[in-house]
Amino acid sequence: MSQRKTAEERAITFTGGTLDRADQLRVNPDRLAVAWADPRARIIRLDGLDPLPTDEGMLASDPVPAGAQLGDHALLGLREDGAPVFISLIVEKKDEPPVFPPKVWQIVPLLSHAEAALYGGARSLVDWHDRHQHCARCGAQTHAVKAGWSRQCGTCSAEHFPRTDPVVIMLAEYEGKVLIARGIRFPPGRFSALAGFVEPGETIEEAVRREIWEECGVRTGRVDYLFSQPWPFPSQLMIACVAQALGDELTLDTQEIAEAMWVSREEVRAALAEAEDAAFQPPSPVAVAHHMLRWWLGE
Amino acid sequence: MSQRKTAEERAITFTGGTLDRADQLRVNPDRLAVAWADPRARIIRLDGLDPLPTDEGMLASDPVPAGAQLGDHALLGLREDGAPVFISLIVEKKDEPPVFPPKVWQIVPLLSHAEAALYGGARSLVDWHDRHQHCARCGAQTHAVKAGWSRQCGTCSAEHFPRTDPVVIMLAEYEGKVLIARGIRFPPGRFSALAGFVEPGETIEEAVRREIWEECGVRTGRVDYLFSQPWPFPSQLMIACVAQALGDELTLDTQEIAEAMWVSREEVRAALAEAEDAAFQPPSPVAVAHHMLRWWLGE
Repeated sequence: MSQRKTAEERAITFTGGTLDRADQLRVNPDRLAVAWADPRARIIRLDGLDPLPTDEGMLASDPVPAGAQLGDHALLGLREDGAPVFISLIVEKKDEPPVFPPKVWQIVPLLSHAEAALYGGARSLVDWHDRHQHCARCGAQTHAVKAGWSRQCGTCSAEHFPRTDPVVIMLAEYEGKVLIARGIRFPPGRFSALAGFVEPGETIEEAVRREIWEECGVRTGRVDYLFSQPWPFPSQLMIACVAQALGDELTLDTQEIAEAMWVSREEVRAALAEAEDAAFQPPSPVAVAHHMLRWWLGE
Repeated sequence: MSQRKTAEERAITFTGGTLDRADQLRVNPDRLAVAWADPRARIIRLDGLDPLPTDEGMLASDPVPAGAQLGDHALLGLREDGAPVFISLIVEKKDEPPVFPPKVWQIVPLLSHAEAALYGGARSLVDWHDRHQHCARCGAQTHAVKAGWSRQCGTCSAEHFPRTDPVVIMLAEYEGKVLIARGIRFPPGRFSALAGFVEPGETIEEAVRREIWEECGVRTGRVDYLFSQPWPFPSQLMIACVAQALGDELTLDTQEIAEAMWVSREEVRAALAEAEDAAFQPPSPVAVAHHMLRWWLGE
């Protein structure tokens, strides 16, 4: 196994953000108003929920326009020079049919590493506001509070916080091979690591073992954490692990998994090199699964 | 450092559940109806949201009463002998003022290890249903679907899944000491590890470094994952880590932290032994922070 390296050190997409989130400003209306009035303040401009990269790999942004309302914006944080960065919570989503791979996966690599991380968090936050205009407790309208880091119900006062859903994503390892799978929504040839949401009442390791068992019928023992990635489609925390399989016989849950197979290091190497005779197409470099395969090769 | 052991191997409370979650039954109405009609099926009985332990350390439960509706219940899973376990989604919460430590922390240790894990997941699920009767998208009423593992809106059809909020909880380590803190809601003398919610757009390691910086003003470098715990008050995934501090000077966020201090192994040992002259009262054995201190002692 290669040495222990975090996702930031591996330069995995959406990690390595450099903004100071300045959480103390979120609950301090006076300091927040000062940030909003700062002449250096910028508002990130999106295209629907997609980023608009500049030629320099930055997110497109504008100064705060006259008449804009602070309450319609979230404070994402402060740049190293102290310049505040905001984003509008009013989003015009585009009603496009889903494609695979999504168009945004081709746009994100045009951003610098740190800007992609800023974009990821911003997209998750804005999308959460858009999908949570009402109070789950009583159904009434909610409004953004704490500089866009929570929503409050105008009727029952319940406070709601942005969701981040922990997902385990894992390689099962057995006699020098790892288990990869093609989900039923993936195009032919495209394989990735198994993954699934952590459910209430289980640890990371228990979720890893359950998912491998449910999806491929393989029992596993020891589980090791590798690294993690925030995934903004819409807002997952991807927790990458490796599990030691106790056997290699596969029984697929065909509601979820179209195909699964054990692959050797040579096969993984050929796939990542996009060799013509590769056994499978690897996950996108944007996805943490790509880096899990690189980790397994010792890269 | 002691060897790598999971939370289950450390017998941490709420881990080590033995039920088969039988997720394939959730989406199969025929098989679900068979489980509901199984004469061995039991419904866990709670006291508000608190458990009712039997003398044998099991959760109190009843057979399915005549006239009970499957749609008002969640399937928690199957026992080893195949007996289905359900829980009612209709909860009568008690309106009691919060006390510290909560009464439920004294009841949970009366359950066997596996039953406490079953209880934790069940409590989170039931409480989530209770607090999510409406659609966050449009405000209309939602109803339980998939054997209680999601809710669907009757008006806009949006589907909502149980929340599990990832929280980092961590010891910062510096020259043979670790950093512990007393939150502003903790009684005098009671210290624990620092903790905070993972936000959209950050990795586990980034959240650890941000929280230690925000709450105590300490910069940290390397972060290692230790183990995790599902925490059902109401539904967190506690991700325990250790971070290497780059200095020991403290600047507290007094909105969150009443006191913080660096403690030696002798001080931690005395506190866990509940010595009369101990420097602090340790976290409850129910909490993962307790086990983080034991891990640090090499136990």
